Amino acid sequence: MAEPIRIAIDAMGGDFGPAVTVPGAALTLERRPGCHFLLFGNEAAIRAELAAYPRLAAVSTVRHCDVAIRMDDKPSQALRAGRRVSSMWQAIDAVKKGEADVAVSAGNTGALMAMAKVCLRTMAKIERPALASLWPAATERGFSIVLDVGASIGADARHLVDLAVMGSAMARALFDLARPSVGLLNVGKEDIKGVEEVKTASRLLKEADLPDLDYRGFVEGDEIGKGVVDVVVVEGFTGNIALKTAEGTATQIKDYLRQAISRSWLAQLGYLLARGAFRELKEKIDVRNINGGVFLGLEGVVIKSHGGADAHAFARAVEIGYEMAHQGLLTKIRDTMATITHDDPLSPDTAPNSSPPREAAQ
Amino acid sequence: MAEPIRIAIDAMGGDFGPAVTVPGAALTLERRPGCHFLLFGNEAAIRAELAAYPRLAAVSTVRHCDVAIRMDDKPSQALRAGRRVSSMWQAIDAVKKGEADVAVSAGNTGALMAMAKVCLRTMAKIERPALASLWPAATERGFSIVLDVGASIGADARHLVDLAVMGSAMARALFDLARPSVGLLNVGKEDIKGVEEVKTASRLLKEADLPDLDYRGFVEGDEIGKGVVDVVVVEGFTGNIALKTAEGTATQIKDYLRQAISRSWLAQLGYLLARGAFRELKEKIDVRNINGGVFLGLEGVVIKSHGGADAHAFARAVEIGYEMAHQGLLTKIRDTMATITHDDPLSPDTAPNSSPPREAAQ
Repeated sequence: MAEPIRIAIDAMGGDFGPAVTVPGAALTLERRPGCHFLLFGNEAAIRAELAAYPRLAAVSTVRHCDVAIRMDDKPSQALRAGRRVSSMWQAIDAVKKGEADVAVSAGNTGALMAMAKVCLRTMAKIERPALASLWPAATERGFSIVLDVGASIGADARHLVDLAVMGSAMARALFDLARPSVGLLNVGKEDIKGVEEVKTASRLLKEADLPDLDYRGFVEGDEIGKGVVDVVVVEGFTGNIALKTAEGTATQIKDYLRQAISRSWLAQLGYLLARGAFRELKEKIDVRNINGGVFLGLEGVVIKSHGGADAHAFARAVEIGYEMAHQGLLTKIRDTMATITHDDPLSPDTAPNSSPPREAAQ
Repeated sequence: MAEPIRIAIDAMGGDFGPAVTVPGAALTLERRPGCHFLLFGNEAAIRAELAAYPRLAAVSTVRHCDVAIRMDDKPSQALRAGRRVSSMWQAIDAVKKGEADVAVSAGNTGALMAMAKVCLRTMAKIERPALASLWPAATERGFSIVLDVGASIGADARHLVDLAVMGSAMARALFDLARPSVGLLNVGKEDIKGVEEVKTASRLLKEADLPDLDYRGFVEGDEIGKGVVDVVVVEGFTGNIALKTAEGTATQIKDYLRQAISRSWLAQLGYLLARGAFRELKEKIDVRNINGGVFLGLEGVVIKSHGGADAHAFARAVEIGYEMAHQGLLTKIRDTMATITHDDPLSPDTAPNSSPPREAAQ
């Protein structure tokens, strides 16, 4: 058997802390037996939860941290108060030190991003990191990848190409594809549509004809869920809004349906008979099953779980981290970036059409 | 009784032409008896349909046009081939000449926008027109207004303020509200989040404290459907993607549910019993019931129906046009713009933080 994957967990992250992160890790261990865990946070609280999971306890090391980052801490506050000493920082730092292959936290996104950037640093040749999300899609595997969903705001053409490279590396790692298909999110299909950065990125990706990704042109908002491509690339402001809009729409439809059914006993009876189908639907659109954002472009793998995740959802995020580490995400990104550098089709073209990048406001 | 509302219809627009637009007008007439119609297009085709609707025929004038804009004509092609002579142009021109109060077309969006701009011109003090869409929301009336959903790409702070003014005028006309609530779509709630234009627009709207709209700050993508505000303002690229993403998500969930139900006879039975509830859900999320985009900021009211609309859906679009004309949309926009000019809080502040506007690519 190969080396076990070592997973660093910010046990204090999220709305519920060890009450969710420890049972979540236990669920992961059932499904991925070849894991070791480093659990960072309040030792007493963690051990109290661990007592119920002897098999997890046997493959876990607990590292006490005095500081836990709060869900409403601003990134700057989090860095001031939690650098080096918080469970979030320590989990990331374990990746940097080579003690863990991946770090997982359900803590707040801004703080996690800031700490991951400061601690791990951005990969060579990558301008800025990104946050990638799984998106339920009508594909065989049930998901596409969408990035950036909010790690940074604004993107020049070069950054959009980086996003394509990083997203395709993630798709190769997670979906086991040789050459994932990639599309740029735009307001129409024709070459002349959209903002300059997107048009330039499209041209660059066509010209580069990279060995590791199959660039398919523009896709529109209603095509993400159809799974027309494996990876959808979009700048972080629009990507974040698109993701939240889709989540909001799913919730809204669930609410409408619940209200409509509750208004008649016949409908309620019908619901009972069809509850298998409803369960299946719920599985498909449940945010818990698509939990686990991946920070891409850093010198280490960091996974962000929803703050409100339960153990089941947290385990999903941990398992995405497992796959990313197991399949060598970073190597895959580096390999593709290397093919870009050799051809170097990008540098002369991007500058005139690019607007200056803006960092995500914090 | 007041003067009848006169509605100019591009009878050839959309995937089905007079076979949908004429029955659609007839449906409108049933629900809004005080209407007169100007029907533009192939006279023989229109009269053939009109024969089935004598009451509509009695209040309609048919104006023959030789040219019909195709659904895939580019805006520039459409203008070249269809200026002055097409049914689309003529319907818009009837508004300009004062022969009609509103024009409705199911023709292609780009062509309609281009013709409306050229024919009607932009209102004084409005930088660029916008396209506003109804969005199903958990409010008493069931809808919010979102704009811009794609009329132009990129927006400086000043244009975002214009969008707020135009959207609130539409909300006052359509929802009969005295002071609609308005939010700016952003990636977070805090003042420091998002792109500069959005932050500046937020500050300007707060400072202006306009009498006709109640500015409530930032809203996120998942809050549109919750109806937290009556009007959601967003730049056209992101707005278009958000709208299509929401439509795509609704379709996707409908497909999942259909598939899940079709897999078991028990679920099918349940579906039959609950079909009233499903019908109710379908009504709520059916794109046909939310048909009718409103072009705002032009010297005349132009309504865009979905190209694939059936008669029922087309009638919805016509009725939105009716309300806009009946309630004096243009006067409402002008009135609010006047309150801005008097205070003039905008001009000195916007310039340094604004990026140059970009026209929608065509």
